[in-house]
Amino acid sequence: MESSKMNDPLIYRRVLLTVDEDDNTSSERAFRYATTLAHDYDVTLGIVSVMESEDINIFDSLTPSKIDAKRKHVENVVQSYVQLAEKAGIKKVEPLVYEGGDVDDVILEQVIPDFNPDLLVTGADTEFAHSKIAGAIGPRLARKAPISVIVVR
Amino acid sequence: MESSKMNDPLIYRRVLLTVDEDDNTSSERAFRYATTLAHDYDVTLGIVSVMESEDINIFDSLTPSKIDAKRKHVENVVQSYVQLAEKAGIKKVEPLVYEGGDVDDVILEQVIPDFNPDLLVTGADTEFAHSKIAGAIGPRLARKAPISVIVVR
Repeated sequence: MESSKMNDPLIYRRVLLTVDEDDNTSSERAFRYATTLAHDYDVTLGIVSVMESEDINIFDSLTPSKIDAKRKHVENVVQSYVQLAEKAGIKKVEPLVYEGGDVDDVILEQVIPDFNPDLLVTGADTEFAHSKIAGAIGPRLARKAPISVIVVR
Repeated sequence: MESSKMNDPLIYRRVLLTVDEDDNTSSERAFRYATTLAHDYDVTLGIVSVMESEDINIFDSLTPSKIDAKRKHVENVVQSYVQLAEKAGIKKVEPLVYEGGDVDDVILEQVIPDFNPDLLVTGADTEFAHSKIAGAIGPRLARKAPISVIVVR
């Protein structure tokens, strides 16, 4: 190994935090880790949530007002995290709200290419309630993402 | 959510880095991330490698000198990372060399309880060549470990 290169610091410059509607302990800790990094290294923090199309059942999906309400709710969740991050002194925070069929696919195929993060931060218990795939998204993204992933507990 | 608690920094205090014999890019980056954290937050860094019993075939296992040579090699690998970390200015570095049947089990059942880390750092391609389970250990540990895990790419 090249020792000169090995001793270079490795600092992530664009951090992407996934949030969902449920405030569980690991999501809170994920938020705290992401904001700690963003604060201490002055990095850009993206806070993303995904509104899954499957969230909306066939009856609801026929009611545009209900879809709008749902979208507004997800936007509010992301916005509340953005405000908390700003309160923690983070200068560069971007709210990101996406929609799509499956949260893993949306993050891998849309959010990551768009936001171009070098680190994804997710709580170990962060899961999207109506995701087609059961269980937390963190370990799955740790396997599938093209970037570094921290699963926070 | 309680905003006061949410704005507390989250800093890991005991970082465990897994290394194997092969220097691939993700292992190097994992080392660099672990040492960056250890340096910037003055945390204790444990550097662990596991000598798997299955590494040694039935003939070799009858030769104590070959087992000793293998053990010595793993110790040297860990020691070379420890020296690099010290060169990077890390004050508190602990070499950890374990033996056992399966690297996942050894890390989960022995190394984590002994060293008591709050963050495990592993390269996305870090795998133990003769592990019974194929593929990189990072995503598996991200799912199974009781602590935070970062899979570095």
